[in-house]
Order: sequence, then C-alpha cells, then structure tokens
Amino acid sequence: MLPEVKKDATRRINRIAGQVGGIQKMIDEERYCLDVLNQIAAVRSALDQLGVQLLTGHIESCVLSADNCAQHDLLQEVRSSLSRFLK
Amino acid sequence: MLPEVKKDATRRINRIAGQVGGIQKMIDEERYCLDVLNQIAAVRSALDQLGVQLLTGHIESCVLSADNCAQHDLLQEVRSSLSRFLK
Amino acid sequence: MLPEVKKDATRRINRIAGQVGGIQKMIDEERYCLDVLNQIAAVRSALDQLGVQLLTGHIESCVLSADNCAQHDLLQEVRSSLSRFLK
Amino acid sequence: MLPEVKKDATRRINRIAGQVGGIQKMIDEERYCLDVLNQIAAVRSALDQLGVQLLTGHIESCVLSADNCAQHDLLQEVRSSLSRFLK
Repeated sequence: MLPEVKKDATRRINRIAGQVGGIQKMIDEERYCLDVLNQIAAVRSALDQLGVQLLTGHIESCVLSADNCAQHDLLQEVRSSLSRFLK
Repeated sequence: MLPEVKKDATRRINRIAGQVGGIQKMIDEERYCLDVLNQIAAVRSALDQLGVQLLTGHIESCVLSADNCAQHDLLQEVRSSLSRFLK
Repeated sequence: MLPEVKKDATRRINRIAGQVGGIQKMIDEERYCLDVLNQIAAVRSALDQLGVQLLTGHIESCVLSADNCAQHDLLQEVRSSLSRFLK
Repeated sequence: MLPEVKKDATRRINRIAGQVGGIQKMIDEERYCLDVLNQIAAVRSALDQLGVQLLTGHIESCVLSADNCAQHDLLQEVRSSLSRFLK
C-alpha cells in the first residue's frame, strides 16, 4: 500500500466510523427514520469512494510500472470515471 | 419507531460498527487491498439491508393503519422485493 | 397498476430503451470507453428511479387504503427518501 | 477498444436491450409490479457488469504496457474484485 493511499484510507475509514457512531446514536434516540436513512446513504457513498481509492491505489502500486508517468496520468482519469460511476 | 424495529436496527448498526472497526484494523495492518474491498462491499450491503428495515418499519408504523392485517402482510412482500432490488 | 403509474412507467422505460440504443451505437462506433461508462451510469440511475416509482405506486395501490389521504401524503415522503437513498 | 472487448460489450448491450424490451412489454401488459422490479434489478446488474468489462478493458488497452504480462494478470484480479464490489 502506497503511504499516501494508506494515509487517505485511514482518514476516510475513521470518518466513516464516526458517521456510523452517529447513526448508532440516532437509532438509540429514536430519531426520525427518514433522517437516519439519509445518514445511511451518506455512509454508503463514503464507503464507495473509499473503495475507489483503494482499488485505484492498488492498480497504481501493484499493476502499473513505477516509472511510466503516462500510465499514472491515464489512471487518474479512470479513478474519476469509476468514482462517478458509483455515485 | 416500533420496539422490534429499534431492536433489530440496533443489532444491525452495532454489527456494522464492528465491521468498520475491522476495516480500520485491516488498513492499519496494510492488508491486501482487494481483501479490504471485499469487506467494504459487505458493509455496504449490511447498510442497505438496515435501510430497507428502517424504511419498511417506518411505512409500517407511520403510513399503514395499525389494525389492517392485509396491509401489513402486503408490506412484507414489498420488504422482500426492496431487499432483493438493493442486492 | 394505477393509470398514472403505468403512464409514467411507460414514459420512463421508453426513454431508457432509447438510452440503451444510444449505448449500442456508442459501442458500435467504438466511442471513448469512459464516455460509454457515463451513459451506463445514467441508465442505471434511470432504472433505479423507475424502480422507486413502481414500488411506491404498488404500495399506494395495493397496500394503502384508497380513502386515507394521510397515508398517501406520508408515502410521498417515503418516495422522496427512497429516491435519494438510491442515488 | 480491443476487438474482444468490443465483441463482449456488443453481446452484453444487445442482451440488455432485449431485457429492456421485456420490461416495456411487462409494463404494457400491467404485470405484477414486484416481478417488474425483479427484472429491473437484473438489468441494473447486467449494466454494472458491462461497466466493469469496459472499464477494465480500457485500463488494459490504454493504461497498461502491451507487452507486460504480469500487469495483465494482476488486472484480471482487479476485474473480479470490482465485479464483486458492484454486486
């Protein structure tokens, strides 16, 4: 795992853990169901974006040649596209 | 929120919180990216099922008539269908 | 199926069929892959919205009492919420 | 677009067009809503798989070096993982 991918993934999953803690609290306090549903949708979307980052980070570090800049530039475009696809 | 919906939702979100904790650990230990991705997909699926339970629980308690059994039976079918739709 | 649900669903599925025809053409003409992917994402989203309309239309016509306005108003809120959840 | 990717994508989108035609017919004949919903879910899943094939085919032809077999083997694993992630 590239250091910057790990750092970004750590930040994202910690934020997700905080959001899940918020949902636990909302359920415990019996907040309005449709508000809880909105929060669930937000976490799902955050998980998808984490998935995209990990997947493309994996392609970057394991599949591509380290010294081929053109490959890495093209992968940026794939990352944006995949990210939109999952939205 | 119906008591049985709250109980079920609490159980589900606690399990999800545990799974997210597992992903935090996997990232910290730099586990294989594609294994982490599988776990992320599992959590996303668990969130969707929680969403279905809350949404249909909400319909049951707020939208339907309390004493109309036929409505509640039909909603069970909707719940299964929505659950499959999101899989 | 309520007449207005059928009319709306017909309009939506016809539009989706047109979009799928567009994707067939894009693939045939070997258009840029990431542009095709954007179109696929648009169709997926259109299918989800069709699903939401059919599902809530089904709840409206089969599950709810025909003469209970409060139920039907509450269902509108469920429809919006489900629609956002799937986005 | 690699010839085998185009051939596979053409086969998939033609099948999807057929499925969408089936849904048009189901709506026209006012078939049971939850059966229609199942068909919609099947098409959405088929679109996702088409997206995965196009995206990874794009990586294969545009991002990777043509003569690096190890890269292409690793991408197969990414393809399976992405495919599972979207299920």
